[in-house]
Amino acid sequence: MSGNPASEHPVPDRFADDPAFAVHEGGKLAVASTRSIDSIADLALTYTPGVARVSSAIAAEPELARRYTWAPRVVAVVSDGTAVLGLGDIGPAAALPVMEGKACLFSEFAGLSSVPIVLSTTDVDAIVDTVMAIAPSFGGINLEDISAPRCFEIEDRLRERLDIPVMHDDQHGTAIVVLAALRNAATVVGRQLADLRVVVSGAGAAGVACTKILLEAGVGDIAVADSQGILHAGREVTGTKQWLVENTNARGFAGSMVSALEGADVYLGVSGGSVPEAAIASMADNCIVFSLANPIPEVDPEMAAKYAAVVATGRSDLPNQINNVLAFPGVFRGAIDAGATGITEEMKLAAATAIADVVGEDLRADYIVPSPLDRRVATAVAEAVAACAREQGITRC
Amino acid sequence: MSGNPASEHPVPDRFADDPAFAVHEGGKLAVASTRSIDSIADLALTYTPGVARVSSAIAAEPELARRYTWAPRVVAVVSDGTAVLGLGDIGPAAALPVMEGKACLFSEFAGLSSVPIVLSTTDVDAIVDTVMAIAPSFGGINLEDISAPRCFEIEDRLRERLDIPVMHDDQHGTAIVVLAALRNAATVVGRQLADLRVVVSGAGAAGVACTKILLEAGVGDIAVADSQGILHAGREVTGTKQWLVENTNARGFAGSMVSALEGADVYLGVSGGSVPEAAIASMADNCIVFSLANPIPEVDPEMAAKYAAVVATGRSDLPNQINNVLAFPGVFRGAIDAGATGITEEMKLAAATAIADVVGEDLRADYIVPSPLDRRVATAVAEAVAACAREQGITRC
Repeated sequence: MSGNPASEHPVPDRFADDPAFAVHEGGKLAVASTRSIDSIADLALTYTPGVARVSSAIAAEPELARRYTWAPRVVAVVSDGTAVLGLGDIGPAAALPVMEGKACLFSEFAGLSSVPIVLSTTDVDAIVDTVMAIAPSFGGINLEDISAPRCFEIEDRLRERLDIPVMHDDQHGTAIVVLAALRNAATVVGRQLADLRVVVSGAGAAGVACTKILLEAGVGDIAVADSQGILHAGREVTGTKQWLVENTNARGFAGSMVSALEGADVYLGVSGGSVPEAAIASMADNCIVFSLANPIPEVDPEMAAKYAAVVATGRSDLPNQINNVLAFPGVFRGAIDAGATGITEEMKLAAATAIADVVGEDLRADYIVPSPLDRRVATAVAEAVAACAREQGITRC
Repeated sequence: MSGNPASEHPVPDRFADDPAFAVHEGGKLAVASTRSIDSIADLALTYTPGVARVSSAIAAEPELARRYTWAPRVVAVVSDGTAVLGLGDIGPAAALPVMEGKACLFSEFAGLSSVPIVLSTTDVDAIVDTVMAIAPSFGGINLEDISAPRCFEIEDRLRERLDIPVMHDDQHGTAIVVLAALRNAATVVGRQLADLRVVVSGAGAAGVACTKILLEAGVGDIAVADSQGILHAGREVTGTKQWLVENTNARGFAGSMVSALEGADVYLGVSGGSVPEAAIASMADNCIVFSLANPIPEVDPEMAAKYAAVVATGRSDLPNQINNVLAFPGVFRGAIDAGATGITEEMKLAAATAIADVVGEDLRADYIVPSPLDRRVATAVAEAVAACAREQGITRC
């Protein structure tokens, strides 16, 4: 414990008042044996000498590891703690409760074992090398809360080198749920995705991935803003932002995010900050506002409701919560069930459709995505993702 | 699956006949949430937004991670698969069933969560870097089945750089149980450790660690043999073997292991191979034979019983099984309970004494160590190890 006087850290009282701390006491996960060891015979099968026969068989025929070890069914939840929730670069120890939380959700919603791996390095090469080194222990890699643009390179390099599912959830989990929500919101307002004009506020991990999946899903017109305004051909940018310049903003907006909102059908906020009421008022009739900053949405939800036909946020106390728990448990479950060698764009699109379809005939303006507690979702997503992987011929099972 | 014709691998039939494979189907471990998530309120405490308050608190005060994450109570079982049981260098995938087995035993005997981490690299620097990179995720590092002499350097470097318990179990787990067994065997034959003359056959991981702990425990006279014979000042050796030359063999044996056995009180085999009957017959009266190669002991146990007062092996179907499950669960449990910053020689000696003491008044020639299933052992070891760590002032709790 710290050697500082207790008066400098009046912390115990604060914790006693907050049930979140009680929930975290001692951590939120446990690893247990799925085999009982009650006799010498049990011990001799689970451990030596019996285990040696299993190990020998795998040594002779490596593919047997898929059947006789847990690795193909375990996900590593890997973070360097550089972009944790809205808290920023808080380091690996402070990131751990979030990674444990994800592992709880993998277990609860998809019946998948997962292990938080928080890293003492933020170096891209070191992170890639570390994940490659431990990869034989796992059947999937869920990258989490790694800051942009490092997250893009880390995911790309791991996807290229590993033949197991790798997904940076802050990008693709969010993107899948946003697409599911936008599909249903478009139906609510009687529009097609291809006819919508979208403004994305934020060109970080989530903004880039949302833009990509919306383009893949057929949204025809997207302008993306970073803190300097809309990305356009006159901006000197590199990397992922250059990709955005080349693939978005067909109308050639060159000003602020607010200026592009005039007449737009969809606002997608994944940036923080705040949007003035006049900008939302300037959007098209029956517009759609997804404001995902948490806990404080970029657009006040009550204000948005004055102008928009559909409003969604990241908050659990409001309708239409865009929560990536709707995606990641089922995506990994489906990819693992199929023995997929990776997670393709098609699999993500299939996941989004499956989430949207769970809403079904109950669809209305304040119910465009299922509840994050809806146990049907992970199953539906897993089945859709596995079926897609099998159709694409990238499966082992 | 392999593209070879099935006739080349008549494997399914063999597996159906061996219950070890049924026990390993799908792996032997599961990670589960220790918190139920049945409501939006549960979700908001276990995951966002509640988890953000816990992460923020840890970011401000890193020591809080000990209380509010699982990491301080999770052991990584790390192997590169280079020296797995008696199977040798079979690689990470084939090593995994053994590491899962150890994790089952950590869970069953010490109530500790642990995670198998098998590595795709055998490079010493890469292994050290990888373990350092993932170390914030764990409260202890159990190194396992890493070949000598690499295992010595890897353990030394990690112990120096990490402030959590690090132990190479093939060395120290075995050594602790051997010392416990020899303590009790000496009592059976009415001798003191200091008066025993010991011959150790094997200068690998287990042989070196056993020799060191026996010296620390006061055994006065130990000669160690590798495949070239007894280690002595005339041999040109380096590293750990040079240390053995300088610290053992006070009588200056310079020939074969067999020649040193004449008149010896204790044979400790941790090498494989076989010892001729004449050599065992040449040992002192009331001698002690520990022959730990598995599944085929170096000395046939029935033959040994003709000459020795006490015989122990590594086999589960014979009395006096030297099984490191008697040590590692309790050693890590005790070190973690005390928040120890490492595992000292004194803690290992305390563990050995605790194991020996569980036998208590039931001690006899065919009961010198407790059964590997004896649930009292891990508790006794944990208490002794934690008390020792506290006495040494290397604890956080």
